[in-house]
Amino acid sequence: MRANGDTTGSTDTSRVIADAAIRLFYERGYHGTSIRDIAREANVGIATLFHHHGSKAELLRRIMNTGFDDLLAEMEEAVQAAGDDPAERLSAAVRTHVRCHCERPMESAIATSEMRSVEPPLREEFAAKRERVHALFADALADGAAAGVFDCPTPRETARAVHAMCSAVTGWYRQDGPMSPDEVGELYVGMALRLAGARSPAGAR
Amino acid sequence: MRANGDTTGSTDTSRVIADAAIRLFYERGYHGTSIRDIAREANVGIATLFHHHGSKAELLRRIMNTGFDDLLAEMEEAVQAAGDDPAERLSAAVRTHVRCHCERPMESAIATSEMRSVEPPLREEFAAKRERVHALFADALADGAAAGVFDCPTPRETARAVHAMCSAVTGWYRQDGPMSPDEVGELYVGMALRLAGARSPAGAR
Repeated sequence: MRANGDTTGSTDTSRVIADAAIRLFYERGYHGTSIRDIAREANVGIATLFHHHGSKAELLRRIMNTGFDDLLAEMEEAVQAAGDDPAERLSAAVRTHVRCHCERPMESAIATSEMRSVEPPLREEFAAKRERVHALFADALADGAAAGVFDCPTPRETARAVHAMCSAVTGWYRQDGPMSPDEVGELYVGMALRLAGARSPAGAR
Repeated sequence: MRANGDTTGSTDTSRVIADAAIRLFYERGYHGTSIRDIAREANVGIATLFHHHGSKAELLRRIMNTGFDDLLAEMEEAVQAAGDDPAERLSAAVRTHVRCHCERPMESAIATSEMRSVEPPLREEFAAKRERVHALFADALADGAAAGVFDCPTPRETARAVHAMCSAVTGWYRQDGPMSPDEVGELYVGMALRLAGARSPAGAR
């Protein structure tokens, strides 16, 4: 798991404030959370909060930016390491996406639900990052369908379904529950290969 | 498509106000929308808005209540009509859920994203309705797995994946796009049967 240091700047206080903001944005939404709520949750004064993070909008920007960058970096590294085989690439993308969403459920959910709270041109910047995440699913599916590795007549729609089911783990996964993030990842790899119509034995599970 | 009259009371003005609220809650979120924004969008005075809907919270309650009740009524009717076969029941649940989400994307997205904006005990009431929706997927999958109709070792997790992918159509479906709600519904029936490991010819698509 990647350290989330960039969310917050370099100090412990900064991190405490960011963690408080993540909890509140997750529970109440960005617009449902005031800067005073965050300061109270972090047990710091308003001036300290502004000193470390500038504004509520800047806090959201940092949280979302770190969330997208960490997810993209981990997924791109995993897909790169998977080589050329579309089933391996799809598996790596799904495994990593799901694990990251299990490990950082609140940040991941915020990145999805608060896209509308971000003003242009930042919104377009985040949308482009989300599109790069999506392309890791979509390209593997399109390549596998074209090569006949997948029996998948609608790779575009399948990519949407795979991305949606992987993102939704934030809604039910509990870190004190029976499954580890890696176990959930493997479960979703199996489901994604089924959806893809993978012909290899790996797809038969 | 069911008439959404209960969202709004019985008058045209009431409907216009509710439609304005649906658009704004969808675009900016409940907490990002003020009662003045809704009045302006509906081109009515604040007093008129309060007369028809009482409060912003009451508007959200009506929108979400109608959304859940319409969806549940249509899904339960379709699943009932599908008979005992788990593959037919799953197909009916998916087809209806997806069609409703394509036909009413904003109301459907609000019902998901604003659950946290609703205060208890109303939140628990809506969560119970969402659970009834989920059970229509989950019961068909569990019954099919138990009966050997589905080759599905993890019906519980598969139900979560199916529900998530069906709900996510609100994020990309456009009513002026190339596919009708019924066509999207059939596409998702095919994907759900794949995920379920349906053994029948209907699952081979």
